[in-house]
Amino acid sequence: MSIVLYHHPFSRAAAAVWMLEEVGVAYELRYVDILAGAQKAPEILALNPMGKLPILTEGETVVTESAAIGLYLADRHAYGRLAPKVDDPARGTYLRWSLFAPSVIEPGAMAKAANWAFKEGSAGWGSHEAMLAAMESAVSGRDFLLGENFSMADVIFGGTLRYMLQFKMVEPRPAFTAYAERVAARPAWQRAEARNAAIRQERGLDRG
Amino acid sequence: MSIVLYHHPFSRAAAAVWMLEEVGVAYELRYVDILAGAQKAPEILALNPMGKLPILTEGETVVTESAAIGLYLADRHAYGRLAPKVDDPARGTYLRWSLFAPSVIEPGAMAKAANWAFKEGSAGWGSHEAMLAAMESAVSGRDFLLGENFSMADVIFGGTLRYMLQFKMVEPRPAFTAYAERVAARPAWQRAEARNAAIRQERGLDRG
Repeated sequence: MSIVLYHHPFSRAAAAVWMLEEVGVAYELRYVDILAGAQKAPEILALNPMGKLPILTEGETVVTESAAIGLYLADRHAYGRLAPKVDDPARGTYLRWSLFAPSVIEPGAMAKAANWAFKEGSAGWGSHEAMLAAMESAVSGRDFLLGENFSMADVIFGGTLRYMLQFKMVEPRPAFTAYAERVAARPAWQRAEARNAAIRQERGLDRG
Repeated sequence: MSIVLYHHPFSRAAAAVWMLEEVGVAYELRYVDILAGAQKAPEILALNPMGKLPILTEGETVVTESAAIGLYLADRHAYGRLAPKVDDPARGTYLRWSLFAPSVIEPGAMAKAANWAFKEGSAGWGSHEAMLAAMESAVSGRDFLLGENFSMADVIFGGTLRYMLQFKMVEPRPAFTAYAERVAARPAWQRAEARNAAIRQERGLDRG
């Protein structure tokens, strides 16, 4: 069964290419022209009523939500390598930070950038200062979230952190920038960057 | 190794009791008086710098983020029963909706309630109408997210949906209320409700 990623280099699907490159399976990228609104075409809505990318399919299986795609690929195609096995105590830390990225960093960084007011106890993502402290604890004193071993949690968490640093939605604390450099040293990250760049060029999306 | 849930019945830890009851393992509830700010005490911050509940520990393992706690418990203690095994194609659907709850429903319902303005393409959670359509597609024409088989994804997604319905943060479409009734018929849900209610009473938290 072949893996298809519905992709556009300006969407969160760009990061899903990195997930696929880490896992090392064969995959096809299917271009969805989000600049023309193609993510709202019926065939895309049939896969994901959100009308958003990324969407990954493998046979009859449809996975949406970036972090879910990462966890799925690691469990299914890199089990014990990029995902600790279910009887490995590291599984808890792995899931914790994999969920932290979409549950806390994504909405928390956006709420901060937009200056939204909310009660810390009501929002699942809590206060911005606490979020930074939690992130700092996660990436300090170790190479990767699980210690020496790189995992899909680093792709999910590290990809989100890199994005937030790039758009200045998270302050560049030294622990964050050092960690972001470590994950960007991954050959799979570099292959994914090259692939996204090639598609941008091919489609005339690079602004000069 | 014993499982400890840091708990308060007015926090998201109330739903983690349901997760534990579904899994069927022995566990201890440790009361954290969030009304007195005890979630910011040093011993809690050492476990979770967010200063938020729930926190689950098992030996040296610390898990935070409600959905991560659910996925962890199912993988580790109810593998193949509440979590499809990693080689089961249903694993993709399971992860998709488990991640959808914290990534989309939590921030999306809050953004809607607070009337926050944002670009649909920027926010990971997309438009409210699309979110409702996606949720409707997930729970219609089947008993549970995976079909006939109840899974931890239903605890995560169903628990979030029930909460949002209760606080009128999601409109009560018939497919939602019918699904919410199906999950509330679970004996484990009822045991968790009773346990949370007993703690509220014991601590004098019920307002008469």
